[in-house]
Amino acid sequence: MLRPTHAVLRPNVVVVGTGWAGAYFTRNLNCKLANLQVLSVRNHCVFTPLLPQTTTGTLEFRAVCEPISRIQPALATLPNRFYRCVVYGVNFDEKEVNCVGVGVVDTNFNATVQTFNIKYDKLILAHGARPNTFNVPGVMDNAFFLREVNEARGIRKRLVQNIMVADLPTTDLEEAKRLLHVVVVGGGPTGVEFAATVADFFRDDVRKINHKLVEFCKVTVLEAGEVFGMFDLRVRNWGKRRLDALGVRIVKGAVVAVNNKEVVTKDGIVIRTGLVVWSTGVGPSSLTKDLDVDRTSRGRISIDDHLRVLRKGAPIPDVFAIGDCAANEKLPLPTLAAVASRQGVYLAKKVNGELSNKPIMAPFEYRSLGSMVSLGDNAALVELNVPTKFDFVGLKALFFWRSAYLSILGSWRNKLYVLVNWVGSAVFGRDTTFIGDLSEDRVWRTLAAEEVSREYARKKAFAKLKMMETKTTITAETLEMGAEMGYIVGQSDKAEDSSTAEAKDTPNTKPQ
Amino acid sequence: MLRPTHAVLRPNVVVVGTGWAGAYFTRNLNCKLANLQVLSVRNHCVFTPLLPQTTTGTLEFRAVCEPISRIQPALATLPNRFYRCVVYGVNFDEKEVNCVGVGVVDTNFNATVQTFNIKYDKLILAHGARPNTFNVPGVMDNAFFLREVNEARGIRKRLVQNIMVADLPTTDLEEAKRLLHVVVVGGGPTGVEFAATVADFFRDDVRKINHKLVEFCKVTVLEAGEVFGMFDLRVRNWGKRRLDALGVRIVKGAVVAVNNKEVVTKDGIVIRTGLVVWSTGVGPSSLTKDLDVDRTSRGRISIDDHLRVLRKGAPIPDVFAIGDCAANEKLPLPTLAAVASRQGVYLAKKVNGELSNKPIMAPFEYRSLGSMVSLGDNAALVELNVPTKFDFVGLKALFFWRSAYLSILGSWRNKLYVLVNWVGSAVFGRDTTFIGDLSEDRVWRTLAAEEVSREYARKKAFAKLKMMETKTTITAETLEMGAEMGYIVGQSDKAEDSSTAEAKDTPNTKPQ
Repeated sequence: MLRPTHAVLRPNVVVVGTGWAGAYFTRNLNCKLANLQVLSVRNHCVFTPLLPQTTTGTLEFRAVCEPISRIQPALATLPNRFYRCVVYGVNFDEKEVNCVGVGVVDTNFNATVQTFNIKYDKLILAHGARPNTFNVPGVMDNAFFLREVNEARGIRKRLVQNIMVADLPTTDLEEAKRLLHVVVVGGGPTGVEFAATVADFFRDDVRKINHKLVEFCKVTVLEAGEVFGMFDLRVRNWGKRRLDALGVRIVKGAVVAVNNKEVVTKDGIVIRTGLVVWSTGVGPSSLTKDLDVDRTSRGRISIDDHLRVLRKGAPIPDVFAIGDCAANEKLPLPTLAAVASRQGVYLAKKVNGELSNKPIMAPFEYRSLGSMVSLGDNAALVELNVPTKFDFVGLKALFFWRSAYLSILGSWRNKLYVLVNWVGSAVFGRDTTFIGDLSEDRVWRTLAAEEVSREYARKKAFAKLKMMETKTTITAETLEMGAEMGYIVGQSDKAEDSSTAEAKDTPNTKPQ
Repeated sequence: MLRPTHAVLRPNVVVVGTGWAGAYFTRNLNCKLANLQVLSVRNHCVFTPLLPQTTTGTLEFRAVCEPISRIQPALATLPNRFYRCVVYGVNFDEKEVNCVGVGVVDTNFNATVQTFNIKYDKLILAHGARPNTFNVPGVMDNAFFLREVNEARGIRKRLVQNIMVADLPTTDLEEAKRLLHVVVVGGGPTGVEFAATVADFFRDDVRKINHKLVEFCKVTVLEAGEVFGMFDLRVRNWGKRRLDALGVRIVKGAVVAVNNKEVVTKDGIVIRTGLVVWSTGVGPSSLTKDLDVDRTSRGRISIDDHLRVLRKGAPIPDVFAIGDCAANEKLPLPTLAAVASRQGVYLAKKVNGELSNKPIMAPFEYRSLGSMVSLGDNAALVELNVPTKFDFVGLKALFFWRSAYLSILGSWRNKLYVLVNWVGSAVFGRDTTFIGDLSEDRVWRTLAAEEVSREYARKKAFAKLKMMETKTTITAETLEMGAEMGYIVGQSDKAEDSSTAEAKDTPNTKPQ
């Protein structure tokens, strides 16, 4: 299958992240011009705009995921590779990315962890952002976020769990009310879509579990500023009325603390709740914070018009950043899928051009096509930035919203599953199966488990990482030689030889 | 919605378990004649024959689950209830079931746990069985079972994890071979179907991730006796040839130890492996072992022809047992879905008859219709016990196998999802998305987590349980009064009053 490569040493293009930006870059890179290495803890791209619908079982998780190996089939062929790992640093002078490979997590929640470095010729940073907690105490440990599939699944599990616990004979009325009160912090598109879909779920599906519980189910959106801030006044008011009709309460207030049973606002309001979803925008990830680069006032990686990463105002050679992790200080773009995906496409063309000596000189430009928010089963808001500007609301907007997302979904496979799930959920109701880890075994384990807070875990883990020695380094040479010899890179003694040798002058040496 | 109940005190029918037996009983009980209480740690019934296919992403988990509230819609209306709990004992003299309610498991894996009792007038024990480990050391902590959806998900996660770890540059060739070697212990229908589906997955889908890995992928079935033992010699031989063609190796041998990297047989063979699936039949669950009843030589609850539970040879009044947990010593039936479901239907008719004074006198009888095993994407074995007996193999058998399961699937919803998944997986390939708990946060947590073995957890949990005090008792009276008053049972002071009073003579007392 492999064409002979020993005559051509192709440059190593390393992509960090498999979000919208990374996935679109990966899909559009011409793999005949480069060795492609994709590094991410996630082996798939998530169709984030549909994520809120997975929390209530309207959509199944697989319907909104696309494995990266399907997005770029060339990854199945050496020397291209996808490595599942966490990137914890970049050495721009050595042109090296520091990775932690995650081993098999066994039944005791242990995993072997090993560090390695990947050499790059071109580096694309697309590792995204982390939810912004504004350092509000308790958020990291007690609130749920809604940016990843496992987070959406955590919310779904908690929702169904809360209903079942509220239903136990040992649960008193006050506790049941607390458990069935969902608080959404943040009135942006994700927060509002989640609130609407949960309200629909409570109304339509909880009555099939225990119809007496429905009256205790409540959804509150806490927002310091304005809900539906991105829309016109007319559309915005329609949206608020629609939320009101769904029974979603909007409370103005800034959150100052979250514990495992309450949300506290600046005005001293204490809201008792069984599920807090935190959706107030994003801040820098720990990798972004650690990198030796310029950062914008919001903490994002500073990039220029050509998406090149800046250090002391000048572009670092061959390093680009796209998506939520980066911004141009002069014109910061919103952290949207639309921006990230278009940056990915632009940058792939640019890198393809550079690799084939036809560089693209035009800077990256972004023009928003409009805003859309779905509001549960029966309505949506759509505002389009087209010359004959037209906004619409209600069922027609919902139809537009669904068609739009169906048409941009990554693959026919996703289109099929999303469509079938939408039809299935409309006809049969949402899925309320609780597939917890709580088999009987798990109950015993839960009873016995020790408490480990996220903060403690993170600190302890970083301390471990600092002490570890990194031996393996993968270069473009290692990759191509490994591919020629037909084995997996980095394995056993042979690979180690070639990686330590880094024999630039002997790429065509054939081992016996 | 509720019709007045204070004039009629309906008996309390309590069902333990939501497997095939419990679900079929629950579906067929006439809820106008009784208060129905279903107790299980699982809020859904699993379509177990299709479980092996979910491990490789051919089918999605929701396709093989049906929520119990959908199987018996009357459960949504008080006084009928589903309680998610673990049953840890039955007091036959007090007619009381001892339960542990499982609370919300929070982000730190803590859960509040509370005990309560449920009074029964008729009790149906359908709590199933546990995998039989034959006390082989290490099996509980290192092997995977394949009886529950969370177990299937565990296998799927481990499979994808192993592939990604084998693909890391820090993984050497020997370790990659170990990780990609799947060992199935037990050559029964579940074990063989799983082996075939994994072999198909390795051949079709791993090449899309990294085509160099395919040659290292191996599947071994370890069986002490005969693979396909339930079939005729001719069919059996065809099946073995088919497994051979799929690359599944059959090794004769009894396992004497399993650790986290190896399986050791009696003959001293050591097989290095990254995933052990243990599928050697079932033994009694801890509840079955604890009950004060007669047991068969295999440790199952002893029942008579009418499925009544025996103690010292005589039926315990109003207590029945069905499914894998029970057997008639004179004629023990195999632990099959077909047996359990027909027992459920029979018993529901019987209880309906008793409650309406039209008792059914005929004993339970079971006649097997035949055996079916699917062998991956392209074949199956079918042997039918019909007068003009005909067996078939290959594609025709696979078509029969699929049609048969499609037609007996619990609901149109399941039929739709299974059909769409089958078509989707055939056209687009299986789903290889890894939705682990391994977000970046989780990686840190994994690195820091303490080791807690299953055995330790179970012991510690039981010790805790023994020390807990149980206050709440739910009776048929509590339920009907709670339903009349329109609130959830067991909540706050009111419910406690009525439950402690147990006022048999004042079922129509109306609190203000």
